[in-house]
Amino acid sequence: MNDKPDSPANSHPSYDKLARHFQKTSHFEHFNALGDWDQATMMPTGGAAARGEAMAELALHLHELKTAPMLAEGLAQASREPLSGEQRANLREMRYHYQQATLVPGDLVQAKTLQGYKCENAWREQRKHNDWHGFKPNLEAVIALTREEAQIRADALGIPPYDALLDKFEPGMTTAKLDANFGQLQLWLPSLIQEVTDKQAREPGVSLNGKFGVQAQQNLARELMQLLGFDFNQGRQDISSHPFCGGVPGDIRLTTRFDEADFTSALMGIIHETGHARYEQGLPQAWRGQPAGLARSMGIHESQSLFCEMQLGISPAFLAMLQPKIQRHLHYPMTQDELARLYTRVKPGLIRVDADEVTYPCHILLRFEAEKALIDGSLSVADLPDFWSQQMQRLLGINTDGNYRDGCMQDIHWTLGELGYFPSYTLGAMYAAQFRFAMEQTLGPMDELLAQGRLEALFAWLEDKIWSKGCLLTTDELMLGACGEALDGKYLERHLRQRYL
Amino acid sequence: MNDKPDSPANSHPSYDKLARHFQKTSHFEHFNALGDWDQATMMPTGGAAARGEAMAELALHLHELKTAPMLAEGLAQASREPLSGEQRANLREMRYHYQQATLVPGDLVQAKTLQGYKCENAWREQRKHNDWHGFKPNLEAVIALTREEAQIRADALGIPPYDALLDKFEPGMTTAKLDANFGQLQLWLPSLIQEVTDKQAREPGVSLNGKFGVQAQQNLARELMQLLGFDFNQGRQDISSHPFCGGVPGDIRLTTRFDEADFTSALMGIIHETGHARYEQGLPQAWRGQPAGLARSMGIHESQSLFCEMQLGISPAFLAMLQPKIQRHLHYPMTQDELARLYTRVKPGLIRVDADEVTYPCHILLRFEAEKALIDGSLSVADLPDFWSQQMQRLLGINTDGNYRDGCMQDIHWTLGELGYFPSYTLGAMYAAQFRFAMEQTLGPMDELLAQGRLEALFAWLEDKIWSKGCLLTTDELMLGACGEALDGKYLERHLRQRYL
Repeated sequence: MNDKPDSPANSHPSYDKLARHFQKTSHFEHFNALGDWDQATMMPTGGAAARGEAMAELALHLHELKTAPMLAEGLAQASREPLSGEQRANLREMRYHYQQATLVPGDLVQAKTLQGYKCENAWREQRKHNDWHGFKPNLEAVIALTREEAQIRADALGIPPYDALLDKFEPGMTTAKLDANFGQLQLWLPSLIQEVTDKQAREPGVSLNGKFGVQAQQNLARELMQLLGFDFNQGRQDISSHPFCGGVPGDIRLTTRFDEADFTSALMGIIHETGHARYEQGLPQAWRGQPAGLARSMGIHESQSLFCEMQLGISPAFLAMLQPKIQRHLHYPMTQDELARLYTRVKPGLIRVDADEVTYPCHILLRFEAEKALIDGSLSVADLPDFWSQQMQRLLGINTDGNYRDGCMQDIHWTLGELGYFPSYTLGAMYAAQFRFAMEQTLGPMDELLAQGRLEALFAWLEDKIWSKGCLLTTDELMLGACGEALDGKYLERHLRQRYL
Repeated sequence: MNDKPDSPANSHPSYDKLARHFQKTSHFEHFNALGDWDQATMMPTGGAAARGEAMAELALHLHELKTAPMLAEGLAQASREPLSGEQRANLREMRYHYQQATLVPGDLVQAKTLQGYKCENAWREQRKHNDWHGFKPNLEAVIALTREEAQIRADALGIPPYDALLDKFEPGMTTAKLDANFGQLQLWLPSLIQEVTDKQAREPGVSLNGKFGVQAQQNLARELMQLLGFDFNQGRQDISSHPFCGGVPGDIRLTTRFDEADFTSALMGIIHETGHARYEQGLPQAWRGQPAGLARSMGIHESQSLFCEMQLGISPAFLAMLQPKIQRHLHYPMTQDELARLYTRVKPGLIRVDADEVTYPCHILLRFEAEKALIDGSLSVADLPDFWSQQMQRLLGINTDGNYRDGCMQDIHWTLGELGYFPSYTLGAMYAAQFRFAMEQTLGPMDELLAQGRLEALFAWLEDKIWSKGCLLTTDELMLGACGEALDGKYLERHLRQRYL
């Protein structure tokens, strides 16, 4: 561990003991990450049973480590020891992890996990058949357990129930802060969407017609990852049906799904995941295995992938770098302008994961409002479809009456009781826009840096301000250090207006 | 677990508790196997540090599980419980594993591990430079610790020290049995080699001239694995610098190294490893995670790979099946006769791993005699090179004076203190020949089965007699059940005479 005691006066035996315990836990997390990655990319179907049993055993062992009785006493004692600022930050994160692992009683965790699996499992079929009536009782059970969880967390932490759910994914975030930032969004976004779609209606559309071999796409993807500074000595890229960024410190593994009829989605998928991966590769080495060495939050993580994809990836200057590479690998004639029109096409639609960066926040606003109301009890699951349709109408002018499949049944999150997660996506977009603004104050316009081939300057800024901080700073401290101010959604508005109007 | 108690009279709580403990341990072994495989095939270089730390943590955890205090008492109590025959066999194997984990004091294990790594590490360079004098003190330290280990095991088990080392790899095998079987071998093998080499001197040699693409070799390898019944739903094939068969039950993963200048070595390597893999895939499913569900011994394991490679793989009837496949994948003109001459070429040489099946046992005889003498103290490490040269002269007519690199410094085993392992290779060859003889008594000549395309009949016999038995039988019981008699080296002699004279 760092900050080794240099004199007996600086000794902190309880902190050291905690640090060793978290280090040990991280070694078992290593195998959890490896097992997950292997399962998604390499494991033959026949290996599922043995892997499932081994992963369950490992989960139990991790739970025991994370709730070990020595932790409570150790945390109390360590707080009275002479610690450096960084050690104190690590201790804060240790306490957070211990709280997360112990706040909710084991039988509620188990009940929610079981009900979540049941609901998710049935949902996979029910969604296909637009079967709201089959889905509803399962979701009701999950929401009831999630409300119970939220209340227990709220009581323990002394914060409102929905804040206590946010705390799982975005520590320090509150409903009040979200209401302020997302409330602003509601004021300008619907009219902006109208303006943009009106403007784009006058532009020619772009369509793809070709077959794009997986190997060629793979080669292009790896070249892009290299361009974006991904270190292949410290990671891999493979194929899986659901793209993700996994692995462990020093060995970050991202995955892609290639579509032979359309290269554009995998291409931006790779850029997105590379954003996640560079964050992970850039976390502070000295704090590996400690809570302070982990990524800050889901929102900050998403800000790094969205910075890569939305701020950088689909900017004209980056597309100018991309176009000859596409030409060379895929032999498909597409001008830079066509690429830009394709990647910046704004079209209100039913499905969140297919949404462009302008309409995407509307999907999150809707879910945020629904989650809050489901948790405080002002919205019942029975009323969810009507609520959904009204909000879709209001935000995107789309009627979803009777279309449950592409309405409130489209996401996996709620089936598992993961309420409080959705805001991270739009927080990520807001953080990313704000980071870019702050970065440009120091480095000058991003487009000019790209034109000079100084791509790495952007990443050096991110590494300095965000990656290397791990969890040593709170999110508020991180924003203040990077941007000189707290989260402000106005930079997202500014970004979207500049790019789309 | 099987054999669930059907009445209180058949209850065996201590046995059940042991079974759960071994099941749990096997789940952590799962991650050990996955970590090993991934490291050899997938892991980027930068992942080594984190993997090393995680594997060390896992090794410690496994050690704790395998030496858990509850085991000693549980084993004693379970032996007094009403158990089925299979449960009693499982209990016997549990006791064996517990003994193996606890016989040697932790500080001696650690000292030997450290000295072994040190010796092996230095050896990698010293061997290149033929540096016997640098190597000698390191080997002396390893041998001293190994003698200490052997004595402790011997005292605890009440058997001679070298037998106690054999017991680690080939439970139940004794120096006396080996002396009998290997002693016979010495009588007929040197003259057989002379006869064969005289005969082959009159035959034209075969040489390869071509470049064989990795992808084409890979495709050929997979087709061969399928022909040999490898189940790709329950396993994989990948590339690693040192071929091995790893993975876990339900997910057996073998690896290959391809040489673009010579396809023949990878080809037989694949067949060899597929033999190991089919054994693993065929172990009794009902006993997965229990000691009784594991492979019987190193020698029996090697018998399955050598059956595939030597009894089956280089037989004229199998090469007749192979030849058109080689033609189709590699487009290299080679007659079946040329293939046979290439794969059955007998040539005394310095290096064990390059030896043909006729001269190979000489390399093992030499090591067996040396190991016995090193352990009983009648041979010192200082005298090893002279001993080596004399034996190579006697057995293969080769002088190794001054050539340490390709003499007693050629193997990794001793650098790590792994004495007692070498006999498994020739035991495997003997078992394989004996299994083939027994099999042919029931099924008729193998060549005829192959000509009828009834390859799977051979594997069905192996599955029935060997794979499905796991460790439910002792090796002696296994041999008796499969062959109606104990191990007898005469079948290897018979096989070699039939094929080569």
